[in-house]
Amino acid sequence: MSRRYEDLSGPEIASNINTDSILLLPIGAIEQHGPHLPLSVDHVIADETATAVVEACGEELDVWQLPSLSISKSNEHAWSPGTLYYSPDTMAAVLRDIARGIASTGAERLVLLNGHGGNTTHLGTALRELRLEFGLKTFLMHPSLPPAYGGASTEEELGMGIHGGRDETSVFMHLRPELVHLNKAERRVPEGLAENTHVKFGGSTSFGWLSNDFFADGYIGDPTGASAALGEQLFAGAVDTLCEAMEEVKTFDFGR
Amino acid sequence: MSRRYEDLSGPEIASNINTDSILLLPIGAIEQHGPHLPLSVDHVIADETATAVVEACGEELDVWQLPSLSISKSNEHAWSPGTLYYSPDTMAAVLRDIARGIASTGAERLVLLNGHGGNTTHLGTALRELRLEFGLKTFLMHPSLPPAYGGASTEEELGMGIHGGRDETSVFMHLRPELVHLNKAERRVPEGLAENTHVKFGGSTSFGWLSNDFFADGYIGDPTGASAALGEQLFAGAVDTLCEAMEEVKTFDFGR
Amino acid sequence: MSRRYEDLSGPEIASNINTDSILLLPIGAIEQHGPHLPLSVDHVIADETATAVVEACGEELDVWQLPSLSISKSNEHAWSPGTLYYSPDTMAAVLRDIARGIASTGAERLVLLNGHGGNTTHLGTALRELRLEFGLKTFLMHPSLPPAYGGASTEEELGMGIHGGRDETSVFMHLRPELVHLNKAERRVPEGLAENTHVKFGGSTSFGWLSNDFFADGYIGDPTGASAALGEQLFAGAVDTLCEAMEEVKTFDFGR
Amino acid sequence: MSRRYEDLSGPEIASNINTDSILLLPIGAIEQHGPHLPLSVDHVIADETATAVVEACGEELDVWQLPSLSISKSNEHAWSPGTLYYSPDTMAAVLRDIARGIASTGAERLVLLNGHGGNTTHLGTALRELRLEFGLKTFLMHPSLPPAYGGASTEEELGMGIHGGRDETSVFMHLRPELVHLNKAERRVPEGLAENTHVKFGGSTSFGWLSNDFFADGYIGDPTGASAALGEQLFAGAVDTLCEAMEEVKTFDFGR
Amino acid sequence: MSRRYEDLSGPEIASNINTDSILLLPIGAIEQHGPHLPLSVDHVIADETATAVVEACGEELDVWQLPSLSISKSNEHAWSPGTLYYSPDTMAAVLRDIARGIASTGAERLVLLNGHGGNTTHLGTALRELRLEFGLKTFLMHPSLPPAYGGASTEEELGMGIHGGRDETSVFMHLRPELVHLNKAERRVPEGLAENTHVKFGGSTSFGWLSNDFFADGYIGDPTGASAALGEQLFAGAVDTLCEAMEEVKTFDFGR
Amino acid sequence: MSRRYEDLSGPEIASNINTDSILLLPIGAIEQHGPHLPLSVDHVIADETATAVVEACGEELDVWQLPSLSISKSNEHAWSPGTLYYSPDTMAAVLRDIARGIASTGAERLVLLNGHGGNTTHLGTALRELRLEFGLKTFLMHPSLPPAYGGASTEEELGMGIHGGRDETSVFMHLRPELVHLNKAERRVPEGLAENTHVKFGGSTSFGWLSNDFFADGYIGDPTGASAALGEQLFAGAVDTLCEAMEEVKTFDFGR
Repeated sequence: MSRRYEDLSGPEIASNINTDSILLLPIGAIEQHGPHLPLSVDHVIADETATAVVEACGEELDVWQLPSLSISKSNEHAWSPGTLYYSPDTMAAVLRDIARGIASTGAERLVLLNGHGGNTTHLGTALRELRLEFGLKTFLMHPSLPPAYGGASTEEELGMGIHGGRDETSVFMHLRPELVHLNKAERRVPEGLAENTHVKFGGSTSFGWLSNDFFADGYIGDPTGASAALGEQLFAGAVDTLCEAMEEVKTFDFGR
Repeated sequence: MSRRYEDLSGPEIASNINTDSILLLPIGAIEQHGPHLPLSVDHVIADETATAVVEACGEELDVWQLPSLSISKSNEHAWSPGTLYYSPDTMAAVLRDIARGIASTGAERLVLLNGHGGNTTHLGTALRELRLEFGLKTFLMHPSLPPAYGGASTEEELGMGIHGGRDETSVFMHLRPELVHLNKAERRVPEGLAENTHVKFGGSTSFGWLSNDFFADGYIGDPTGASAALGEQLFAGAVDTLCEAMEEVKTFDFGR
Repeated sequence: MSRRYEDLSGPEIASNINTDSILLLPIGAIEQHGPHLPLSVDHVIADETATAVVEACGEELDVWQLPSLSISKSNEHAWSPGTLYYSPDTMAAVLRDIARGIASTGAERLVLLNGHGGNTTHLGTALRELRLEFGLKTFLMHPSLPPAYGGASTEEELGMGIHGGRDETSVFMHLRPELVHLNKAERRVPEGLAENTHVKFGGSTSFGWLSNDFFADGYIGDPTGASAALGEQLFAGAVDTLCEAMEEVKTFDFGR
Repeated sequence: MSRRYEDLSGPEIASNINTDSILLLPIGAIEQHGPHLPLSVDHVIADETATAVVEACGEELDVWQLPSLSISKSNEHAWSPGTLYYSPDTMAAVLRDIARGIASTGAERLVLLNGHGGNTTHLGTALRELRLEFGLKTFLMHPSLPPAYGGASTEEELGMGIHGGRDETSVFMHLRPELVHLNKAERRVPEGLAENTHVKFGGSTSFGWLSNDFFADGYIGDPTGASAALGEQLFAGAVDTLCEAMEEVKTFDFGR
Repeated sequence: MSRRYEDLSGPEIASNINTDSILLLPIGAIEQHGPHLPLSVDHVIADETATAVVEACGEELDVWQLPSLSISKSNEHAWSPGTLYYSPDTMAAVLRDIARGIASTGAERLVLLNGHGGNTTHLGTALRELRLEFGLKTFLMHPSLPPAYGGASTEEELGMGIHGGRDETSVFMHLRPELVHLNKAERRVPEGLAENTHVKFGGSTSFGWLSNDFFADGYIGDPTGASAALGEQLFAGAVDTLCEAMEEVKTFDFGR
Repeated sequence: MSRRYEDLSGPEIASNINTDSILLLPIGAIEQHGPHLPLSVDHVIADETATAVVEACGEELDVWQLPSLSISKSNEHAWSPGTLYYSPDTMAAVLRDIARGIASTGAERLVLLNGHGGNTTHLGTALRELRLEFGLKTFLMHPSLPPAYGGASTEEELGMGIHGGRDETSVFMHLRPELVHLNKAERRVPEGLAENTHVKFGGSTSFGWLSNDFFADGYIGDPTGASAALGEQLFAGAVDTLCEAMEEVKTFDFGR
């Protein structure tokens, strides 16, 4: 049987989804990623990662894949024609409406698999709101934790491969090689930031930024060394890690 | 070059999309369709129809396919576990945010291709709001006009193949035969309604309804006679008609 | 006893209005109608039609006339000084608040009698929302169905007597002859639109429009042939038809 | 020429309304007023007073009468079936939308003539909001200042003829004698309140109240002594006073 | 034990606050008060008055002092850099959220002690909303009733010591002498207003105003005669009066 | 001259605050912290830390201290009587309104000093919103980074001194010893959580929680070892670190 939520009929939802089920919502974005990558990067990565995770451990853990949210809160790229984005209020309303539907199935666990770093704090807030309003146990995972929010990035990028950098470009090359124009990419690392101790990506003091605050072409990182081979390796690693996390989600009960 | 909007990079959007372009937004739904059809019916039909239309006439008319909205305003099915739906306010916010992004590309024509009848009046209102706020020329098309809003339906269904009936089931059988369980379908036609002159689907007096107001299992129509062959024919006809309509959209200027 | 809702005291509401009652809300508009008609056209027509309907069949069918909403969602005329209009959100809030009050009386049937075509889709959406939130049976009627939404219009106007055209002008001449300046009226028919098969008023593809998209003076139709005599006839016909529809409303139960 | 705003056409608005004009918005209510008075009391009084004021001094002062708001913020009577009321948010939206339309005519002065005491503070707030947002000079008048907000009331009622008391009942008897059932009225004065120095109607400490906080039948005052003759006198006095106030409105410029 | 609400722990709230308690919320403002006074005037006065009231009668009447709202609805001063203000909607949301928390303690009486005249009507509306939504008994007091809303003001100021005038300046000199620059103050009385019978501060016709509608430097009154001695006397009088009012609050039950 | 923003007059704001200034907004909370600590913990810590920071480096760096927000988004403690909390929407509106006022002064840098961990993601989102809407450079600092969001916690608490634990209790003992009841504190560490690799505080998978999800009395950590001496040391360290961060804020320009 398909593990795609939307492939079930109403009565099948009622008989297949219950308190043991985990519902997985992939969240993408349609936003500029510089001249070397298409708008779809986060959408594709979230979608493909979710699919791979469900294939790897969905049956064992009773995971159901919801249709991906292709658009999300990308207003740091609002300046760039092409970006489609929800305001924070729209994004919160979308999540709330979806969670209300999930809660009506009897499922208790909802995992947000977020492909877009710009959503991270907003989804972090949503975890609590959805728990409070609907009683769901809520979780937030990333294909790879965004460096701007504490994840790792390469040394060559001084830890700032934030958006369209080496790792993200590599993963996308693995998934959609025909849509990458690596020859258009250059190094875009805000070197000055690396001199700060506190006010920097992942530092003790966070700061508000728009993607053109650093460079006019709106990407941050150094994609020049990206490769599909590296992407394949990163993607496989992410799927493994996410399945491990999913196992913890399966039995999570606040340490009680 | 791909005609999927999200496959373009930011700079490619800037150089490819302009006042001659038509942007096409498929709008689906994730909602119960009775025991014989999955939740995805409207999502799949909107998505597949858009793809076929763009393939048929996209190049000629400079049409770009936006990522499908899988979820929309399905609150007439809120009673049924499984249905995921946006409130009217959320739906309006989603459309507004997307249209704002479209307007920033310089495109002037936005076509909503709506697979879910329950959206029809709401989108009808949105056409004006988006024109007023963003100056876009806005259009609303349906793979097939919903009988509840003036479209044709079969005589056998007394014109009430509203939701999960013969035609919709047939089209879906053509597109995803493996997800249809025709053996679970029965005739569900609210015969009493047919006696009315005014208060009926498509009558001079419209009425508010939820999908379980008629029958407890929430579909309306008679899918028992559905077939993939009929669906193929309907689908092909829809694509032809929509391309004809798209040609009118291309040069539409309010009759001036 | 008066059949105007507001003429009753609180205790009289409690003893007279019940599950058999039909509550009728006339909805007008205060908006430009070209140089030959005052802002009040839709307000007057909705109000007078409701009064005539209640007089004709109110006693028999237990209909109660609510105070008319004079202002509604007329933002297609926002460009014209004089127009007073509610935003879609305000309009929805107004309807919701009124329906909440209606629901508290124990009445179960609410009929919206809409004199302004620009409200049609918005009210179509409201029918469902009010049913869902308050459990009311909700209905939408028009003194005459707007041609832009499927109603008839004259051949001379190529079916586009949308706003201030022959029929509407005639009805208003019947009701308020002193306020009509027929000598200021001209033919305003967007002939080009008539060549379209799909994208036109009442066509399979609807489109967003503002009333000055067609002609700078904001009316659409040919009022030059209007007459009070024709108006009288149309008005009487409308009242008859609406009473017929009211009879169906009286016993409507979704064909069950 | 009619001084009713809605009787003008769009072009007539443009040529007749300007910076010298005063626009007058009557605000009523549809709410319980005890067993002796209909729901329409505030609606009728606001409407009739406005009409009389415009007749008395409209030509001289260039006053234009807007269509009355029949429903307003009556949630202190939400407990009583029959009451139709806007929430504070809806009421604010309604006023804002109307003021936006007024501002587009070029008029600079908007007078709210409020027949419902329960609106008083809300409209007091709106005066500033509409001035700030639209630059209008805004004014709030009452047919008679509500005793709960500093106006006079009779000694016999201990100054608490707040709602459905002697004066209001009298005015309504003058305007619609056939709708008054004085035989159903009794004395309803919360005597205990009169012992307070601070916490009372018009005292230095105001308090939140619902109309059934005092007596279960929801009126406050002593209508038993009401008469049409007294009402006629009060009504005539109100019209005189309001015209005096209108003269001050005409030239008001913040004492500059 | 401290009578500051925030000094209690959660369990102490549960055991100390009950239906006999009165909760006191001081409401200040951060807004321009002319060149002679700091932004904090209303904040300091509300805070200090509340503290003095609780010291004087808090123990006897079981009053608990909530943390002061320093910022409130000061949009009449939006034109002046430095003013921090909540919109009406934000202010309503803040009050609603706080009242929800209060209601959860089991307390039944909430007193708003408002130091900023510009809040008066808004809080007057809130009294009812909070009573309706949370069942609280709600009260509004002022350190001194604002002259613009019916309070007294000096003859020398023609009753218009509205904002930064003699009395307010005096009270602030008593509380924070080091922050007053009396040498920068001049007489700012809109003499023309005094000629009006109706349209004036405290008149039968109220009007919308911004603080720079009268004079460019935004204060209204004559602070030149202010003194700390007068302020001390006014402050002491206010505390006495407020404790008297608090006694009435203690047993208030709508005169029943 | 005082460095408290509210101590300045309007004209002093205009002459003292400019593009070189840093505005510092302390954000507290009024929420349960277990039986050993008062509701005010986060309010006091944010306020005192801000005061100490301004004293230490305010003059040098041109920092101005805004009045503290005492209440914020504490809805993880909504279950506990006493907690006063803003909804996410109210909190966003409050921040937006304050930032609008700040932006009108000509200042360009706004630092949020957040004493309440439950605000962290919400404020993280606000940083971007305020930058996008008002063009401000925005920063988020914590007296100590919350362990739930990546900060350090003691080994004895297994890194989970989240709320009312050893460090927070110590700092509060240093600041308000008379309000701490250490004898009521016990060890409250959700040991089970420590076994997780991914789903834990600060792990790669974050989760939604309410403060009573772990233990019924709502604190998480082990305050038994707290001391004022440790608190003094932590507080001094925080002030030093924050001044270091402030220096980076002073010249921050996105690494350009």
